[in-house]
Amino acid sequence: MSNAYSPLLNELIQALQCLPGVGAKSAQRMAFHLLDRDREGARRLSGTLDSAVRRIRHCDSCRMLTEDAICRFCSSAQRDGSQICVLETPADLLAIESSGAYRGRYFVLMGHLSPIDGIGPSELGLDLLEQRLAEGGVTEVVVATSVTIEGDATAHLIATLARKHGVNASRIAYGVPVGGELEYIDSGTLSRALNGRRQIETPPEEVGL
Amino acid sequence: MSNAYSPLLNELIQALQCLPGVGAKSAQRMAFHLLDRDREGARRLSGTLDSAVRRIRHCDSCRMLTEDAICRFCSSAQRDGSQICVLETPADLLAIESSGAYRGRYFVLMGHLSPIDGIGPSELGLDLLEQRLAEGGVTEVVVATSVTIEGDATAHLIATLARKHGVNASRIAYGVPVGGELEYIDSGTLSRALNGRRQIETPPEEVGL
Repeated sequence: MSNAYSPLLNELIQALQCLPGVGAKSAQRMAFHLLDRDREGARRLSGTLDSAVRRIRHCDSCRMLTEDAICRFCSSAQRDGSQICVLETPADLLAIESSGAYRGRYFVLMGHLSPIDGIGPSELGLDLLEQRLAEGGVTEVVVATSVTIEGDATAHLIATLARKHGVNASRIAYGVPVGGELEYIDSGTLSRALNGRRQIETPPEEVGL
Repeated sequence: MSNAYSPLLNELIQALQCLPGVGAKSAQRMAFHLLDRDREGARRLSGTLDSAVRRIRHCDSCRMLTEDAICRFCSSAQRDGSQICVLETPADLLAIESSGAYRGRYFVLMGHLSPIDGIGPSELGLDLLEQRLAEGGVTEVVVATSVTIEGDATAHLIATLARKHGVNASRIAYGVPVGGELEYIDSGTLSRALNGRRQIETPPEEVGL
């Protein structure tokens, strides 16, 4: 269909389709936009993409994407080295970090257990995680994998690994989100919320009233 | 928000946002996809983008995007040089070409008249079009601009230009699309269809029946 275009234009439209969620039509729109209205942006994107592919790698300690050998979370003296939060993706790391509620270190699995896709413990870098646990100094592993069968299996495997090294393993709470109304929450989440219920602490003096 | 990432990763996420319809979240997803799963595609995209920006330009004769001085439609001896189809975008050219119903040459305006955005006749390359009309050999200008106020104004201007050079100007028909059901067609289109109605040709022998 696109043989009305010049070979290089066709090549560009083809190359843009390596982006997730971009099909032939969007790629065409992107190509025209870049060539017509934003050649400067296209030039910058080309350069950045090239150096990103050449330089961005996984942190030697936590597997986060970074251009340094050791990422800033692993090298920072401000972070609490006794906690390791285990995540599935770099985007999850950003989410946890934005919450401001965590000051420990991280470990990014870059996926979850999925035997059918050939993703086992070694693809998730669990040998690297085990090495960090064996080095000592870690007292708690906070597992924040997703709430799916694969995420649950991954969490279970990591907890086993932690126990082996005498490290406490916890999992972040899954339940009703803040501001969520019960009638609109799905039953799976509600069942998690009920199972994860906690004792309400009441100070003794209030009980005496 | 995205300061949890390394500088180069942030830069890549930023650069990807030059693509139309790509915001911070999609850019992040694209960056992770490319770095995690398709470095080969990213490398190819970077290279193609670079050579496209350096080499793709406008055809000297019809303003179509091409890496040659004269595009293949203008240089082909198979195309009918007596017709020029005037379009707004390269994508429109592809659409007309795919229909298979046109074998003449093209002229791509790369936009439409829009005084408020500073797009006047010279931004649309109408001096170049006039030059082609002045050279002679053209008998019909087929205007295929969009059905908007700007598209109509552009069509009108081109018709005036054509008349000045004694060239016939026509506009493609706008009306009910093939397979369209009347009850679902908007009133603007229906009004165009009614105004553009044509005499039904009946051969004399059938009338005699």
